[in-house]
Amino acid sequence: MKKKKPLILVSNDDGITSPGIAALIAVAMELGDVIVVAPDKPQSGMGHAITINQPIRITAVNLYDGVKAYQCTGTPVDCVKIAIDKLLTAKPDLMVSGVNHGSNASINVIYSGTMSAAVEASIDGIKAIGFSLCDYSWDANFEVVKPYMKQIMESVMKNNLPYGTLLNVNMPVPKMGEIKGIKICRQALAKWKESFDQRTDPFGRDYFWMTGNFINMDEGNDTDEWALKEGYISVVPTMFDLTDHRRIGLLNQWDL
Amino acid sequence: MKKKKPLILVSNDDGITSPGIAALIAVAMELGDVIVVAPDKPQSGMGHAITINQPIRITAVNLYDGVKAYQCTGTPVDCVKIAIDKLLTAKPDLMVSGVNHGSNASINVIYSGTMSAAVEASIDGIKAIGFSLCDYSWDANFEVVKPYMKQIMESVMKNNLPYGTLLNVNMPVPKMGEIKGIKICRQALAKWKESFDQRTDPFGRDYFWMTGNFINMDEGNDTDEWALKEGYISVVPTMFDLTDHRRIGLLNQWDL
Repeated sequence: MKKKKPLILVSNDDGITSPGIAALIAVAMELGDVIVVAPDKPQSGMGHAITINQPIRITAVNLYDGVKAYQCTGTPVDCVKIAIDKLLTAKPDLMVSGVNHGSNASINVIYSGTMSAAVEASIDGIKAIGFSLCDYSWDANFEVVKPYMKQIMESVMKNNLPYGTLLNVNMPVPKMGEIKGIKICRQALAKWKESFDQRTDPFGRDYFWMTGNFINMDEGNDTDEWALKEGYISVVPTMFDLTDHRRIGLLNQWDL
Repeated sequence: MKKKKPLILVSNDDGITSPGIAALIAVAMELGDVIVVAPDKPQSGMGHAITINQPIRITAVNLYDGVKAYQCTGTPVDCVKIAIDKLLTAKPDLMVSGVNHGSNASINVIYSGTMSAAVEASIDGIKAIGFSLCDYSWDANFEVVKPYMKQIMESVMKNNLPYGTLLNVNMPVPKMGEIKGIKICRQALAKWKESFDQRTDPFGRDYFWMTGNFINMDEGNDTDEWALKEGYISVVPTMFDLTDHRRIGLLNQWDL
């Protein structure tokens, strides 16, 4: 009897025409049947935004041979929601998001549309992975990391990943052409120190561009930032329950 | 010697003209000096989105007597970032966000612009609270909950709230005019089952409105959903480290 191929849903936040999603689709096609639902334009930094005050449109596009693909006017999370409700005929065995052009390690996970798409799939009970390459350039080289992506996707499909957990995978630009391996990590404690670039428009009014500096406050050698700096791929088990369970006892001591 | 009044930063996601933020400002003014930086339009469902591909503008507005207030073209998180970098001359003693018109309990926390503004302040080391009233109507009655909001804000300023933790406060519409009290809770395990409303525009093309049904999968009587249903205000300690520390051991057993 022929074994049914796994069904893999693909999305991202850089948009459906990005080289990163093309690399991810290529790997996914080696493992199963692929359906792509991705934003029709860059949606970086959209976090877990959803579109509730405007309608959304989806259009079938013929971009990747042998793959059903749809571009969507909404956010990355919208893409996953509309895929589940309107485009998928069966529950996917895996959802993968990316490959993001740029790091989503440490605090970046919270701003990332790529990761939020994976989080949304995970909330819906689909095994999910967000992939990011620590290279912002559009012509980044994804070839070296493809075998690792395949290995991680296979592992997730094969193993038990409990409901409530997804993976945040960040991949370094290999030094000397080599990746050292894969490390299971925690998210480094870090933040962006914002520095808005203030300018004046031709009409004399001020406007601001958001820029900032990344500040890693975490020296731990069990963090994603450490692993990436050392040339490893970082895999962080990530969750969408934001309860800080450690502090329930503390708050119960307050006089509330 | 006169004690310096605490400095309180206020934002929200329903926009600077919403009745909810007016209620929050009124309470904050009883406790300290207030500065408001809030979106110039509704930004519900924006999650932790930031504006990186467009400039942002801020405009001083004279909406609330005795309060410095700025409206911002960006997202709730943008408001907090630009407040910190460009508008504040000292670190606030407290940041409060809301009062949101509608619940941000359980999974709603992840989609909420109101909560994301508070999360952003918290990442920057500012004690932060997001307040929401479980009433979506614009003319919701905030009077009954004001004393509780004041009590919670005073408690946060007085007590030690460790870095990494903020509060997600949801308030029920009081039955018979009474709130039963305050409960420290965890976030209920719940999700939205999306149901897109498909329509056809005058040009024959489909478009979709996001709608959905809230599904509470959690019967626990230690959850925010339970507390709200019973008539209590729920206070959930919330965190921005998304690492699922429980699963690091499990992943280390995989053959990655």
